[in-house]
Amino acid sequence: MVIRYPNGKAYTQKQPTSPTTAKKAVEKKQSFSNRGKTLEDEINEANEFYLRQKLAVIHKKPVPLQIVKVEYPSRSAAVVREAYFRTPSTTDYNGIWQARYIDFEAKETENKTSFPLKNIHAHQVQHMQAIVEQGGITFVIVRFSKLERYFLLSFDVLKEAWDAMLVGARKSIPLAIFETSCLEIQTGYYPRLDYLKAVEQFYEQT
Amino acid sequence: MVIRYPNGKAYTQKQPTSPTTAKKAVEKKQSFSNRGKTLEDEINEANEFYLRQKLAVIHKKPVPLQIVKVEYPSRSAAVVREAYFRTPSTTDYNGIWQARYIDFEAKETENKTSFPLKNIHAHQVQHMQAIVEQGGITFVIVRFSKLERYFLLSFDVLKEAWDAMLVGARKSIPLAIFETSCLEIQTGYYPRLDYLKAVEQFYEQT
Repeated sequence: MVIRYPNGKAYTQKQPTSPTTAKKAVEKKQSFSNRGKTLEDEINEANEFYLRQKLAVIHKKPVPLQIVKVEYPSRSAAVVREAYFRTPSTTDYNGIWQARYIDFEAKETENKTSFPLKNIHAHQVQHMQAIVEQGGITFVIVRFSKLERYFLLSFDVLKEAWDAMLVGARKSIPLAIFETSCLEIQTGYYPRLDYLKAVEQFYEQT
Repeated sequence: MVIRYPNGKAYTQKQPTSPTTAKKAVEKKQSFSNRGKTLEDEINEANEFYLRQKLAVIHKKPVPLQIVKVEYPSRSAAVVREAYFRTPSTTDYNGIWQARYIDFEAKETENKTSFPLKNIHAHQVQHMQAIVEQGGITFVIVRFSKLERYFLLSFDVLKEAWDAMLVGARKSIPLAIFETSCLEIQTGYYPRLDYLKAVEQFYEQT
């Protein structure tokens, strides 16, 4: 059931702010193009839906932190007083989908014409390569936030651009490559970003 | 190659202390029965071995923290100044092993006669149940640290004890049950805890 305000706008319950979201909000200017919903929020919504419907069990990994100092006040919970964000060596999301191992990263860009490869770390590409070798499914969900378009960037396409970059080619993947070589994820009502539908479609094609 | 000290003792490179290890070290008295190596260290060692040998890609998830306050000192890295440990809703380890999704928890007990079920959270049992329904492999590695014995506690055995506890039966699994219904993991030279060998053996039997 959709609850509406007197002005007709739908009411949406505010999601608790996750550590990453909080970090991003301070680190860069908040984008209002998506009315405050981040790609992470949309993927979490889809994952909750998949879990409830018993379609898949996929979770976001906690933010990797190097904990330096912890205080143990008497009679209350331990408090981390000093910790630093670490560069992730794996992807953000993984889990199981109908007996298949699934592992992916989600990235947003405000760029309108290409996806800068600096969004991906070398360790993540190595990790994804290892997943492919074990027979898993791995990809990147890319959101062009200014265009409100989402794509399923397969590991093959990413790897080709990555390897080309290492030998001096361009440091980004043009939107045209997404349009010709990647599946575009269509948004719907609920979950808004039914990305597994796109994954299924992609793996049926290949 | 094993490097030895003049007294004949083998040299082992010190592992960087992980957040969990640091937390555990302060929270409870350090156990010396295993000469400082925690179960987590042993599993990490095995996982690094599996990754290098291209046998599996299994990682420990970062410790889940609720970040409350982050400082952004100019010209240096962001520092988390207030964060709290959260109860994990999934297991600590997951990944892919020869196209199969694998998901498990690792627990140590100093108890010599039984494994207290308070080591496992209700959310984790629900998570493991969902994994089984999706066709994944899930279990708990239990280390009886005073006995230096390791067991592969299958989800079936755990679930039976868990459900019995909910209707008033005992709050622990007796060692005798481990001896009769679980596979004992034999320790070796390197990796010391080759737990996937036990998993393979277990799934061949069933």
